[in-house]
Amino acid sequence: MSAAIDFYFDFSSPYGFLASQKIEALAARFGRPVDWHPVLLGVIFKETGAMPLPMIPLKGEYSKRDFARSARFHGVAFRMPSKFPIATIAAARIVLWLKRRDPALAVRVAKALYRAYFLADVDISEPEQAIAVAAEEGVDANEARAAIAAHEVKERLKSEVEQAIARGVFGSPYIIVDGEPFWGVDRFDQIERWLAAGGF
Amino acid sequence: MSAAIDFYFDFSSPYGFLASQKIEALAARFGRPVDWHPVLLGVIFKETGAMPLPMIPLKGEYSKRDFARSARFHGVAFRMPSKFPIATIAAARIVLWLKRRDPALAVRVAKALYRAYFLADVDISEPEQAIAVAAEEGVDANEARAAIAAHEVKERLKSEVEQAIARGVFGSPYIIVDGEPFWGVDRFDQIERWLAAGGF
Repeated sequence: MSAAIDFYFDFSSPYGFLASQKIEALAARFGRPVDWHPVLLGVIFKETGAMPLPMIPLKGEYSKRDFARSARFHGVAFRMPSKFPIATIAAARIVLWLKRRDPALAVRVAKALYRAYFLADVDISEPEQAIAVAAEEGVDANEARAAIAAHEVKERLKSEVEQAIARGVFGSPYIIVDGEPFWGVDRFDQIERWLAAGGF
Repeated sequence: MSAAIDFYFDFSSPYGFLASQKIEALAARFGRPVDWHPVLLGVIFKETGAMPLPMIPLKGEYSKRDFARSARFHGVAFRMPSKFPIATIAAARIVLWLKRRDPALAVRVAKALYRAYFLADVDISEPEQAIAVAAEEGVDANEARAAIAAHEVKERLKSEVEQAIARGVFGSPYIIVDGEPFWGVDRFDQIERWLAAGGF
C-alpha cells in the first residue's frame, strides 16, 4: 500500500514549516509518498472566520513562544521572520506550476521557500524574492515569472484552495492519511501510530 | 524542587478532560503536586473573541473526530456528551469551595465531575446534578448547595478567572510549569521534557 499522504500547508505557517521539515522522513518510514499542496490560509480563514494567530489576544503572545519552543522540541532550526504573516500567493503558484513539470523539483523548491522565510528571513511574499529562491534550485527565473502571471496557474491555485476547503482543510499543516485528517505538527505522533497500525 | 504545576481547565473542555486523567501521573513522576484551577472559557472567550469549537466551520467537524481519536490515542475512555458545550459555573464553584477545605477532596470531586460529564453523559451544568456527583464523593449536598449560592464563592471564581486571564490563559487545558505556559493535552510531550530537563 503506497497511497500518497496529502500535505496541505501555507508558506506563512510556522507549524507548516516545522511539518515540512519532518513529513518526508515520517512518510518514507512507511513507504508512503507525500503530495504537497500549497494553499492560502487567508482565503480559508474567510470561510471559517479565523484570524492569524498573532492578532488574537493572549493566544498571539503564547503562539510566538510556542513556535520557537516547538521548533526546539522537534529539533528544527527556526527564526521568526521580521514580517509575519505574509501573502504567499507567488510562492504557492511557483510550486503548483512546478508540480506538473517535475514533482521532485517542486518539493525541493517548496522546502527552499520555507527555509528562506523561516531561517533566512527572506520576504517570499515579494514575487522576485520567491523567484530568486526557486532559481537557486535550478528553476529558470523568466519561466517562473511567467508562471506566476499565467491565467492557468492562477486558476490552478484557486482550484487547489477550493478543493482543500471542500476536504475540510481549515489550518496549516493539515495532513490527510487514507481519508483521516490530522491538523497540526502536534499530530505527528498520531499520524505515526495511524500509519503503523492502519488506524487506531 | 516541588513547586506545583498550575492546571487550568474548563469542565466543558474535552481536551481538558483528557488532561485531567493524565496530569497527576505526569506530575508525580517528577515529584510535583498539581494545583487545579477550574475556569470559565465563556468569560475568557469574550476577551479573545474565540468561539466554542463546534460552532466553527470546518474546524468544528474536525474537532469532534479529534476529541474521540485523541482520547483513544491517550488511552482515556471518552464519550461525547449529548449536550455540548455547557455552562460550568456550578461545577467550578463546588471545586473552588472544596479547595480551601480539603484540597485532596477537591481534586477527587473535579475528576468525578469530569467523568460524569464525559463518560456518563451527566449534565453537570445543572447545579443539582453537579451536587449529586460531589455527594457521591462524600460531600454534604446541602453544604455544596449553599456554597454554589455563596457570595464569597462566586467572587472567588470571578477572581480565579481574572487571574487566569492575567496570566495569559486563553484555552483549556492550559498548564504552567515554572512560569512556562503550555496549551493543550497535545503539549504533554513538551511538558514532560520540560520537567525532565528544567527547560529546553
